[in-house]
Amino acid sequence: MSLTGAEVAKHNSAKDCWVIVHGRAYDVTEFLPEHPGGMKIILKYAGKDATEEFEPIHSPDTLDKYLEKSKHLGAVDMTTVVKEQVEESPEEKERLQRIQKMPLLEQCYNLLDFEAVARRVMKKGAWAYYSSAADDEITLRENHAAFHRIWFRPKVLVNVEHVDFSTTMLGTKVSIPFYVTATALGKLGNPEGEVLLTRAAAKHNVVQMIPTLASCSFDEIMDAASGDQVQWLQLYVNKDRAITQRIVQHAEKRGCKGLFITVDAPQLGRREKDMRSKFTDPGTDVQRQSGQQTDNSQGAARAISSFIDPALSWADIPWFQSITKMPIVLKGVQRVEDVLKAVEAGVQGVVLSNHGGRQLEFSRSSIEVLAETMPVLRELGLEDKIEIFIDGGIRRATDIVKALCLGAKGVGIGRPFLYAMSAYGLDGVDRAMQLLKDEMEMNMRLIGATRIDELNASMVDVRSLYNHGAVPSDNLASAVYDPLINPAQREVKAGVKAKL
Amino acid sequence: MSLTGAEVAKHNSAKDCWVIVHGRAYDVTEFLPEHPGGMKIILKYAGKDATEEFEPIHSPDTLDKYLEKSKHLGAVDMTTVVKEQVEESPEEKERLQRIQKMPLLEQCYNLLDFEAVARRVMKKGAWAYYSSAADDEITLRENHAAFHRIWFRPKVLVNVEHVDFSTTMLGTKVSIPFYVTATALGKLGNPEGEVLLTRAAAKHNVVQMIPTLASCSFDEIMDAASGDQVQWLQLYVNKDRAITQRIVQHAEKRGCKGLFITVDAPQLGRREKDMRSKFTDPGTDVQRQSGQQTDNSQGAARAISSFIDPALSWADIPWFQSITKMPIVLKGVQRVEDVLKAVEAGVQGVVLSNHGGRQLEFSRSSIEVLAETMPVLRELGLEDKIEIFIDGGIRRATDIVKALCLGAKGVGIGRPFLYAMSAYGLDGVDRAMQLLKDEMEMNMRLIGATRIDELNASMVDVRSLYNHGAVPSDNLASAVYDPLINPAQREVKAGVKAKL
Amino acid sequence: MSLTGAEVAKHNSAKDCWVIVHGRAYDVTEFLPEHPGGMKIILKYAGKDATEEFEPIHSPDTLDKYLEKSKHLGAVDMTTVVKEQVEESPEEKERLQRIQKMPLLEQCYNLLDFEAVARRVMKKGAWAYYSSAADDEITLRENHAAFHRIWFRPKVLVNVEHVDFSTTMLGTKVSIPFYVTATALGKLGNPEGEVLLTRAAAKHNVVQMIPTLASCSFDEIMDAASGDQVQWLQLYVNKDRAITQRIVQHAEKRGCKGLFITVDAPQLGRREKDMRSKFTDPGTDVQRQSGQQTDNSQGAARAISSFIDPALSWADIPWFQSITKMPIVLKGVQRVEDVLKAVEAGVQGVVLSNHGGRQLEFSRSSIEVLAETMPVLRELGLEDKIEIFIDGGIRRATDIVKALCLGAKGVGIGRPFLYAMSAYGLDGVDRAMQLLKDEMEMNMRLIGATRIDELNASMVDVRSLYNHGAVPSDNLASAVYDPLINPAQREVKAGVKAKL
Amino acid sequence: MSLTGAEVAKHNSAKDCWVIVHGRAYDVTEFLPEHPGGMKIILKYAGKDATEEFEPIHSPDTLDKYLEKSKHLGAVDMTTVVKEQVEESPEEKERLQRIQKMPLLEQCYNLLDFEAVARRVMKKGAWAYYSSAADDEITLRENHAAFHRIWFRPKVLVNVEHVDFSTTMLGTKVSIPFYVTATALGKLGNPEGEVLLTRAAAKHNVVQMIPTLASCSFDEIMDAASGDQVQWLQLYVNKDRAITQRIVQHAEKRGCKGLFITVDAPQLGRREKDMRSKFTDPGTDVQRQSGQQTDNSQGAARAISSFIDPALSWADIPWFQSITKMPIVLKGVQRVEDVLKAVEAGVQGVVLSNHGGRQLEFSRSSIEVLAETMPVLRELGLEDKIEIFIDGGIRRATDIVKALCLGAKGVGIGRPFLYAMSAYGLDGVDRAMQLLKDEMEMNMRLIGATRIDELNASMVDVRSLYNHGAVPSDNLASAVYDPLINPAQREVKAGVKAKL
Repeated sequence: MSLTGAEVAKHNSAKDCWVIVHGRAYDVTEFLPEHPGGMKIILKYAGKDATEEFEPIHSPDTLDKYLEKSKHLGAVDMTTVVKEQVEESPEEKERLQRIQKMPLLEQCYNLLDFEAVARRVMKKGAWAYYSSAADDEITLRENHAAFHRIWFRPKVLVNVEHVDFSTTMLGTKVSIPFYVTATALGKLGNPEGEVLLTRAAAKHNVVQMIPTLASCSFDEIMDAASGDQVQWLQLYVNKDRAITQRIVQHAEKRGCKGLFITVDAPQLGRREKDMRSKFTDPGTDVQRQSGQQTDNSQGAARAISSFIDPALSWADIPWFQSITKMPIVLKGVQRVEDVLKAVEAGVQGVVLSNHGGRQLEFSRSSIEVLAETMPVLRELGLEDKIEIFIDGGIRRATDIVKALCLGAKGVGIGRPFLYAMSAYGLDGVDRAMQLLKDEMEMNMRLIGATRIDELNASMVDVRSLYNHGAVPSDNLASAVYDPLINPAQREVKAGVKAKL
Repeated sequence: MSLTGAEVAKHNSAKDCWVIVHGRAYDVTEFLPEHPGGMKIILKYAGKDATEEFEPIHSPDTLDKYLEKSKHLGAVDMTTVVKEQVEESPEEKERLQRIQKMPLLEQCYNLLDFEAVARRVMKKGAWAYYSSAADDEITLRENHAAFHRIWFRPKVLVNVEHVDFSTTMLGTKVSIPFYVTATALGKLGNPEGEVLLTRAAAKHNVVQMIPTLASCSFDEIMDAASGDQVQWLQLYVNKDRAITQRIVQHAEKRGCKGLFITVDAPQLGRREKDMRSKFTDPGTDVQRQSGQQTDNSQGAARAISSFIDPALSWADIPWFQSITKMPIVLKGVQRVEDVLKAVEAGVQGVVLSNHGGRQLEFSRSSIEVLAETMPVLRELGLEDKIEIFIDGGIRRATDIVKALCLGAKGVGIGRPFLYAMSAYGLDGVDRAMQLLKDEMEMNMRLIGATRIDELNASMVDVRSLYNHGAVPSDNLASAVYDPLINPAQREVKAGVKAKL
Repeated sequence: MSLTGAEVAKHNSAKDCWVIVHGRAYDVTEFLPEHPGGMKIILKYAGKDATEEFEPIHSPDTLDKYLEKSKHLGAVDMTTVVKEQVEESPEEKERLQRIQKMPLLEQCYNLLDFEAVARRVMKKGAWAYYSSAADDEITLRENHAAFHRIWFRPKVLVNVEHVDFSTTMLGTKVSIPFYVTATALGKLGNPEGEVLLTRAAAKHNVVQMIPTLASCSFDEIMDAASGDQVQWLQLYVNKDRAITQRIVQHAEKRGCKGLFITVDAPQLGRREKDMRSKFTDPGTDVQRQSGQQTDNSQGAARAISSFIDPALSWADIPWFQSITKMPIVLKGVQRVEDVLKAVEAGVQGVVLSNHGGRQLEFSRSSIEVLAETMPVLRELGLEDKIEIFIDGGIRRATDIVKALCLGAKGVGIGRPFLYAMSAYGLDGVDRAMQLLKDEMEMNMRLIGATRIDELNASMVDVRSLYNHGAVPSDNLASAVYDPLINPAQREVKAGVKAKL
Repeated sequence: MSLTGAEVAKHNSAKDCWVIVHGRAYDVTEFLPEHPGGMKIILKYAGKDATEEFEPIHSPDTLDKYLEKSKHLGAVDMTTVVKEQVEESPEEKERLQRIQKMPLLEQCYNLLDFEAVARRVMKKGAWAYYSSAADDEITLRENHAAFHRIWFRPKVLVNVEHVDFSTTMLGTKVSIPFYVTATALGKLGNPEGEVLLTRAAAKHNVVQMIPTLASCSFDEIMDAASGDQVQWLQLYVNKDRAITQRIVQHAEKRGCKGLFITVDAPQLGRREKDMRSKFTDPGTDVQRQSGQQTDNSQGAARAISSFIDPALSWADIPWFQSITKMPIVLKGVQRVEDVLKAVEAGVQGVVLSNHGGRQLEFSRSSIEVLAETMPVLRELGLEDKIEIFIDGGIRRATDIVKALCLGAKGVGIGRPFLYAMSAYGLDGVDRAMQLLKDEMEMNMRLIGATRIDELNASMVDVRSLYNHGAVPSDNLASAVYDPLINPAQREVKAGVKAKL
């Protein structure tokens, strides 16, 4: 027999706290202090249905994994649960109106257009989670801006009737040199989550990297693959290595073809835009809190990442090599010295990346690190010992071409597909990928190359790449600067005459 | 006996489609799928008079060339054709008001002024076609911006009472070192089209380059020439070389004095501003199209260019040399290595050009490529083996002087004359050319040169030319960036007192 | 028996001027011409209570020190003093409303947020005094902007589970490598003044530098220290060295652990924003003053600084070394040559500083001077002979990390704590310091360092640091530039038809 | 007996044209076609009183010099002249209101403030004449911007109690190293004209350079000098050398101490802002003029300069040396090669200048040319053979200090004094000069120099000076650029529901 809403509703305090998720009740009283996202967020739903909040942040198997069976209280008769009447905020009403008026998919001509539309139609918190980055978001913007400091030196009068821009990554043949990189919490953008990306990747024959922090479970994403579609695993390494081993070996068994270990996130970054979007005013009647403590509810990312091991180091690499035969790629390398260490460690690849600007502010763009790396590798004769990928800021096929000219094997694209998915679902991602292919074909022709291996460093002019003179604008510092002004006009009494 | 409007109107579907052009009916049913601009645009006029749409995009002999005689149905009694009552859009009404208020021609003091006026008075689609360029239009703007990174080192106390800035190009004496470069679809700007440019060029004794994609026919433009006026032919090479041969040999017979082969356009670029201006909303009741296909109606340019051969290569040059005695110039060269190849191939000149920013985005400005090219030519002793022209972004006589100081033989100017023509017709083009001459005379004096051959590299400081630190702004990326903000003020209930 | 308000009120002219301060009357008639801030400001309060104006600008012992006892007229019965009814200006009303709505402290996520809030809620004159700087305030902004031209080269796969960013400065162990630098007139921001900074510094275990021009007296600030809290003395050297000697030796006796001699202020700078905020219109009926004289009321700074000795020179250093055993640090050094002189002079440290942009406009940022200095010191083997501090523009822990990578021992932070104090009092300063610690911990992890001594120059890319191409904008010059415009539309009479 | 207004009024056509100037009538019928400013402007006053228009543009002796005596018709009874009732335009009314509200002189804290006030209160045409420059006014703005790319390396701990910034120029002792450079048409800004500058220069003990194109006559300006005040003569060389000789020798006889020959103006530049301000709409009923001719009424400058000799060359220098003993200085030199020629020619000095940006657009700033020049002179041991002055863009004492550090003997300041004079008359100029002195004293102290000869190149960092990456913005090109936009929202019919 099912529980009723009324019964659950009685357990609505920190000392006795039940919540409903997907039609089943759970006693989370003892779990409260352990919740990585803080107890405040759970208490908001004490005695109530928490499904909507729970859904995009947790993969479906979370409760099974982290809450002991005795706390699983069984099914609830949902017809007896009082549906909370949330009044639509004016902000939300405006969003719904914007959705009414959103452009047709065919009006999106490039990847930035999807971002513009997503910003208008996404929920505020979801937009903030996807779009935010570290500190002043300088690196976030530098990532794209850096490409604008690279100019082309195209060849003309090359027969480019037939252009083929397929290539291979870690041994997998792909139709175009990008892959869908791992991004967390796909269901914030679309209720179906990451499996939409799986389907789009299949259609366009590109690799998808599965995120540790997906909204869908790992198996759901693997199951969504079709035929011999290739997927990779992005891994945040757990403090408990047994858990990590289980994850890695399960992925290999399920057929994952690459293990991308994130190395730039011993601690997840503070993202102030996300924090500000999550802030809720406790009200003016509440005694103002003293400043002694920094608020710990720093958005979704911090909450879900407390398990990540800050002690991960080069010394761990041999262990990974001992537990899997998948090629290992270090994701988040940011200096040529570490690329050389990676070669020495015998891994198959590195992703030059600054985590989309979400970790260390003022990390250089990956394209700049690439331009630093390849000449050193070539001088040491190591350029074929390791595959170099980059991600961050790629929005146009010209960006991809530049990366390949400079020696990258391929590029990862993350946010743009999330935005396309959030605005238009699977069709959006599909069109985004097709636009990249159209641009790619055109640009290969215009630069005078018929195959990927014809792209080389002589086709780009990078002399301005290192010139950070014009940094992306420092919005906060600019906003607080009170500019000098010239003397103002005076107010004078009527009738008073001045002479010039 | 003529056909009546009613008779034509019956054939108004994809399966049976007649259209009227210039008072004559044509059966285009079978031609529909072959139309380079897509069938949608023709079907809009099925059973109707399509003249107004047809006119600027096609040269007058198009129907004779591409539609077999049996489909030419003969004259239509135009008095029987129902004139469609197109309601004037508010946008169009505002444009007509702007035309009422347009400045007098004498108020235009420089070439940019014409662009400002043209933008106000041209039809939206025509403006979009002329003004648009590739991707984010970075190269478009870099073309002019690059000149702003070159500074003068003028000589003083030179007797500059008599200044002569005439020169020769491919053996032709001209009064000033610019030529009217080829630009497509002149009738979008003025019903008379390219012949207006012919007349202005004659008056000012400069060369006109005739575009393959003119609205007027080649012969109309040649016929408009006066006396021994010199014209050149710009050539898009057809996949069918027989057609190309016919065009080239006809031009030579008609007296063309130069063959400019476009080498930077194996495929015409995507111009998103143009695409957006052409987009028509199919209406909210239409089922939203899925994203599987990229919309192919990418504006006029793609439509009219499908014949261009992407296989054109260096191997074709000897053939061109075998079919004509005209000097051959390669238009669209973008790296010094290809200039050297051109010398080797024995052609008479190259135009350093990125096609007005309409092809490969992030192509460098032609003035930068020029600064790269000439020192290499001089070091190899080849500077007299070939004439170097540049085009793109030239708006002031100072731009021309800079190009000549750096070694160009002359510069091509395109859009500014189109804008002058679109706003003020022949008088506009005439004044635009005169303004350049006035500026040229003044600037020759002020830099301390009395003849073109006195301009040299010591008169310019190009140290900043390669400095792309400050790229033209990335409008789309800037527009979608959601800036960090400081904490907002709070809404408080009346009567609540806070203490500072 | 106390004086009455009426009695005092009689002495209300320049020839006979009494004022009330903190309930006691003073005869300042003879002192008027000697007042460093000019007599005008005193005369405004002739015969009245001047406490509110006096308070933040003068330390409590000022009257005892500078006005002979015979002029101390004794207590006033304050109930008999007519309280002046100052009408609240609309500007002040708006400020009070802004205070009502000010954000909660928890909504401040970084140091710039405090500045934004302070600007909204501070009194105009106080804000102007704190925020203003020299000339066009270019150096003010360059100070922070310079950090944005330094990029990180982080290490990955370093075990950063345990991060310790404590260090020592002049032998004192501190929890984080910043100190509270000296800033004048703390009571302008908060009635309690500098002692709030003392308490916050104690809590966070950082050093406070006590300013010569504090609103609180030196002893008040020393008394506010708790336990073995370390404080330093910032010294403006008096023309009368006996006074200076007294100050220094008193400080040493009270336990100060460092003497920071300001060397960049032989004369205090003109700060036009401050001057403009202080300007009061003498009214339209007053005869317009001729331009012969520059207005001397240049804000608080000039007024309180007339005692500073412009003759201070290197020759004075041995004397300082003879009168104190405190470590001596020269504050305001701006070129490597002077750092070498400081080593030679045997002082213990220098602060590379441009006085927060308040002195010589176009002084370089301290971080740039640091980058110039350390390689020279290292080459000469002097890097351990002297401690190098910097201040100016530090707003983020990334700024601190950059300074330490480049060789600084620590950084001084001034304005941000004043802003935090002005907006939120002690809690504000506390939170500001905590935010820096949180950022510091995160950034140490993300750059791959577990201790301060692991930070080194290979972790930063300073190639763009010297690139001043993009200077902070020149607001005044921009504001007065009247831009060229395109021809305007014409006004036409109704009915007149133009043809295009 | 005087003429009456009615009699004069009859002669009101091009064939019979009388005008009244300063109460006397003149027959200018025959002179009309010779008028350098065109006949149109005179015909506007045919038969009328032209004094107000005539006054600021012509020196008082113009009519005596250029109109033969027989055309001088004698006195007019001005009471009989109908005073034209000019209706005040709304624009002019607003200006008069702005004058009512203009700030007090004491509120101007720097030279840019005067420019801001002048812009508000000057007549449109006068403002346009003073403020305009060549083409896009890039050089105009670069002149000041270039100083912002130079940063200081100040010395500390220098005894700067006594600071002396007097120096000598061409043997004359001056109190501060600037002079009032020559600027034309002073009466446009103030009815008294250049003599106000003479008086201010006397008061502040600086040299005034008298312009050829002054509104006051040369002798009026000389007569206005007091005591042993030193003045120089700026010379535009006349095609008729006899006139030039007369001018030079008269100046020497009157006591001029320097001859500054302008060498950068063989033809005066086009200043479009000035032209646009002068444009008057001929009305909509007038047949639109064809574009064949460029409007010649290009503002005051062109009109008054037709006598200048474009044939002036190095060969003329010995002749000048033969006719005068005054030191000769070449004003407008712009490259080091020409400075060396000047040394060779044996002149006493050069002014590195681009004529305030009014001549060749994209001329480099004089401070940049100075930085190029001095190292070459020093290497050749010529630095003492010639005095180097610069002008253009100097607005702050820091600008002066930078110029002196780099080797200039002094700097010329022009427009700022015109603006001060136009806004506040003599008092304005006086205050402007005093502000510079106040700034100078402070900055000498802050940079650590007690005398001018202690300023040297080690005190400035010019590494960014040559970096023109960020040019002043190109207003016209920016204004006409139509930016790409993201897809717009759609208008939808009420009731239609879209799904996300």
